[in-house]
Parts: sequence; C-alpha cells; structure tokens
Amino acid sequence: MGSVTVYAADLQAVRDAAARLAGVVRRTPVMTARTVDERAGRAVHFKCENLQTTGSFKYRGATNAVRKLDAATAARGVVTHSSGNHAQALALAAKVRGIPAYVVMPTTAPAVKRAAVEGYSGRVTLCEPTLEARESTAAELVARTGGVLIPPFDHPDVIAGQGTAALELLEDVPDLDAVVAPVGGGGLLSGFTVASRGLNPSIRVFGAEPAGADDAARSKAAGQRIPVGRTDTIADGLLTSLGDLTWPIVRDQVERVVTVSDDQIRAAMRLVWERMKLVIEPSGAVGVAAVLSDEFRSLADIRKVGVVLCGGNVNLDKLYW
Amino acid sequence: MGSVTVYAADLQAVRDAAARLAGVVRRTPVMTARTVDERAGRAVHFKCENLQTTGSFKYRGATNAVRKLDAATAARGVVTHSSGNHAQALALAAKVRGIPAYVVMPTTAPAVKRAAVEGYSGRVTLCEPTLEARESTAAELVARTGGVLIPPFDHPDVIAGQGTAALELLEDVPDLDAVVAPVGGGGLLSGFTVASRGLNPSIRVFGAEPAGADDAARSKAAGQRIPVGRTDTIADGLLTSLGDLTWPIVRDQVERVVTVSDDQIRAAMRLVWERMKLVIEPSGAVGVAAVLSDEFRSLADIRKVGVVLCGGNVNLDKLYW
Repeated sequence: MGSVTVYAADLQAVRDAAARLAGVVRRTPVMTARTVDERAGRAVHFKCENLQTTGSFKYRGATNAVRKLDAATAARGVVTHSSGNHAQALALAAKVRGIPAYVVMPTTAPAVKRAAVEGYSGRVTLCEPTLEARESTAAELVARTGGVLIPPFDHPDVIAGQGTAALELLEDVPDLDAVVAPVGGGGLLSGFTVASRGLNPSIRVFGAEPAGADDAARSKAAGQRIPVGRTDTIADGLLTSLGDLTWPIVRDQVERVVTVSDDQIRAAMRLVWERMKLVIEPSGAVGVAAVLSDEFRSLADIRKVGVVLCGGNVNLDKLYW
Repeated sequence: MGSVTVYAADLQAVRDAAARLAGVVRRTPVMTARTVDERAGRAVHFKCENLQTTGSFKYRGATNAVRKLDAATAARGVVTHSSGNHAQALALAAKVRGIPAYVVMPTTAPAVKRAAVEGYSGRVTLCEPTLEARESTAAELVARTGGVLIPPFDHPDVIAGQGTAALELLEDVPDLDAVVAPVGGGGLLSGFTVASRGLNPSIRVFGAEPAGADDAARSKAAGQRIPVGRTDTIADGLLTSLGDLTWPIVRDQVERVVTVSDDQIRAAMRLVWERMKLVIEPSGAVGVAAVLSDEFRSLADIRKVGVVLCGGNVNLDKLYW
C-alpha cells in the first residue's frame, strides 16, 4: 500500500484565496503579440503580472497570507526577510490591512529597494548580508513583536495566493494546452500547477529557470531536491532553492523545467519591451525565453500556451542590453 | 442668420469606423495607478494605445482609411510620406488588406524606422529631407501607381478612426468628466473630441502639447490657426501643425490646450515606465505630464479624467532620463 502525498495547496485553497483577494488584488490583462507567436511557433498568451500592484505577482500571495490572519494575530504585524518583490508586496498588503510589516534587509540592499519597501510603510531593519543574520534578525523581530513570519514562497497561503493568477488566465483562455511559469523558490510555479491542473488535469505545466540558478532542473533530473549552488544570472528574482512545500508539487506535477541562458533572457526581455511595450524584469522574461527556446519549440501537441510575465521591477537608470 | 460649421467627422463616422475596425484593431486596456492619482489629485484612467498593434493609435485611423476604400481603388495601393508611427500603421493596414503601401521617407530617417515600415511590407522610397521633396516624391508615386494618398492626420477617415479609442474608453469608464489627448497635427485630439462629446455633450476635452511645439495652444489663444515655428522638444511625434480639418474641431470644441516642458514630459514618461510598467514614448507621456501639471490640477469639477497613452515606439538603446 503506497503513501499519499498531501500537497501544501490545492484548487480549493486557490479558489478560497481568489475570494479573499477580490477587489484588492488587480485582475491583470492577458496579452498576445503576433511577433512572439511567429517566433514561438504557436499561440502564446501572456498573463501580465508585471502590471500587478507592487509590480509583481508576489502581491497575490502576500495579500492572501495577510488577509487570512485572524484580527488578534494580524494586529501584531507580519515579518519577512527579503530584499525583493516579496518585501514590497508584504509591506503593501500589511498597509492595506492597517497592520505593521517588519522587513529585514541586508545592509548591501540597493537604496532603491529599501525606499520601495518604506514607500509602502514597511519598517526596515538592516542586518549583515548573510542568510544567518537575516534569519536571526527576523527571529528576533518575531520574538519582540509577536508578528507572524510570512516567507516569500514556502508557505501554503502564499502558494495558494500565487495560484490565483492561473485561475484568471484559464478563465480568460480556457483552452490552453500548457502553462509556463518561472521558478526560483517555486511559489509561483507550484501555485500555478495546483490551480491549472486542478481545473484541467490534462494541462501540461512547465517551469522556466535561468541556467545560472538551475536547481529545479537538476532536482527534477535527479528525482531529489538539490539546493542551488553558486548562482550566476541576471534573473535576480530566481536565485533561491525550491522549498519543502514547493518541491513535491514541482517533482510530481511539473512536466519539465526548461533552462535558458542570460543571453536568451536578455533577448526575450528586449522583445517584450519592444514589441509588447511592457516593462518586465529579467526574471519576468525567463518564461518568454523558455517558450522561444529550441527545446520548447520542439515539443509536440502544444497549440496554445500561457506564460506568466511575473514582474516588472527594474532599475530604469541602466540598459539591460 | 449664422453659418453652420461642418466638421470633418462626427459621432456617426466614429461609430462606422468602430464597426469597420472590429476584429482587426486591438481593444486596448484602460489602466490606473494609485501613485498617479495621488499626484494628479484625481482619478486618472489611461487608455493604453501604446499597446495597440504597431505601437500607437495610428493603426486605428490608417485601418479605417484603408478598409473604407473600394476594392478597385484599394488594389492600386496607398501612399504616404511619414517616417513615424503613421507610416508603420499604414504599412500594416495595407498588408492586412493585401494591398501595397508606398512610403516616402527622408534619407535622414533612422534605419530602425525604415526597418519597421519594411517589416510590415511597406515599400520605402527615399527622398531628400525637405517637405517639398517628400510631397513631390509622394505625388510622383501617386501618379505612377494610381494609389491613394492617406495623410497622417488631416483626413476624415483618419480622424474618425482615431476617435474609436474614445468610444472604447467611455464604454469602459462612462462617467469621465474630462478627457486629455496629446496634439500634434490634431488627428487624435479631434477624433477624441467628436467621439467623446458626441456621446456626452458636457464632457470637457483638453489637448496636451509640448511647449517646444505649441502651435495648438497659440492658435487657441489667438483664435486663428498659427503654424508651428521652429520646434524644440523630445516629443518627436507632435511636431506638426494643426490641419485644415482638425483645426476647426480643436478651435470650437476643445476647452484648452495645456503645454508642458520636456522636463515634465521626461518625468511623466519615467513615472509610467516605473509605476505602470508600460513603455511609452515621449509623445505618449505628454498627456500624463499635462494632468500632473499645476495648471491642470487647479481646474475645478473634474473628478475623473481619461488620458490617452498614445504610443510606445522608443529607441531602447538609449536612456531618456
């Protein structure tokens, strides 16, 4: 008799999240581009989470986690250690609920990222730029404030929240044969997976990952989770390893993780800026690069594919190409 | 007994254009941004024509003009002299109808603009970079091919086509108190005016113009059309003077033309890229700059305003700020 794997989130959890997010989180448009279709060899439908509030899909998971807290718990606030899109998202989600958000950031974080979090009323605590320092500083904040730690991806409510983007995408384009989501820690990919396969068990789900941080691809190949080693990619939102909760979903329900080079990422990013007039960040271009890759183009029986443009937070003072 | 002014287009012409454009021209989304609302002091709804096919609203007017031609006339093709967004729009509109588009461009036009027109199968004829050479070369092409000249703005079908963007905007946000459109030759502004005031005679219409090419503002102030003199602005899509057909509409039905500096344009452009994740060109930012100006902010009784983001064709190899 085999064991039954219970995943961290399922379609019902995503539907509950969608109800919780209604009227708070933006329903982002789905867009297409003739040029991309031609180059991909099939119809590509882009879910524009770069247009989400705070500039990334992270606002979905953060809002779901924050709104799910009971009033007494919520009043003590939420805590995270992140310098990226999750920090901004959690800060705003907390602000909207009227509770404090405590964000631990390394002293090396760019001033612009700190300003973004503070712009959403997040309370920033600086620490040494090591994982140990970040975790211990966050633990201290939790102990001092009684706030709840909301991690960036390995949390059931965060995963379910991210999955709401897939519900919307499949409502707008019900006959997708496949979906592609970038994978870092796997919150977006696993949320997308349980939502889309919950709605349509025959839909095919793919991860898209930078070659310079390819732990998900290597984990899939090995059949066991392999932590990311030294990373080297422009896609700075996808540097983390898969988590305890996201890995089983990726392991069992994601068909393949396609890896792409930084040159492919840059070219895809520029194509979207130029032809779709959408500002996306390097991590947001990884799914685009994947569907344009020879590896993905060679897959049979995929007529229509959905791809998440997951974020648009870039430094506008530099050129990426 | 007074005379009656007959304008080049009216609401019915715009509705006819909308029927002609259905399924060909994209219905662009209307977007909002909290930060912009805060800075504008009111609710701002953006009609995203930067997301239109070919990257600007020009595809509406060009498509309307091309589709309205009878088959025998259309077969001979269309002609224009333009190096900007109208040339790309006309080339694609002709390609979609399966007819040739002859585009006269100055030898000084950037290679990227020529490539864009040729990318849509437009047939480019180069000429000396003077207005005389452009006009005479276009006239020669018309004589040689029997094609129809479709000018970029001063044409009833072009004006009516541009007006379809206003129909969509007011369908999505019916209770707008005012609309703002950038003005160069006035095709967009006059189309917007007849459409929006046809639907709602009490709606207030404003033009937005770079201070460095302010012929519309000066013409309004003088009560007579004054051609643009030497131009000096980053908004290179708005350098032309009002036309014979657009001027009467602007004169009689536009409340005011707000002028903005290049610094205001750059700041507005960056704000939209940064906070809305939309690539807009400098001309596309002129309406944004207008609603953020002290002049516009001081206007009473405007709770909700619609603004056209008219185009997104930029050179991605340079920074604009």
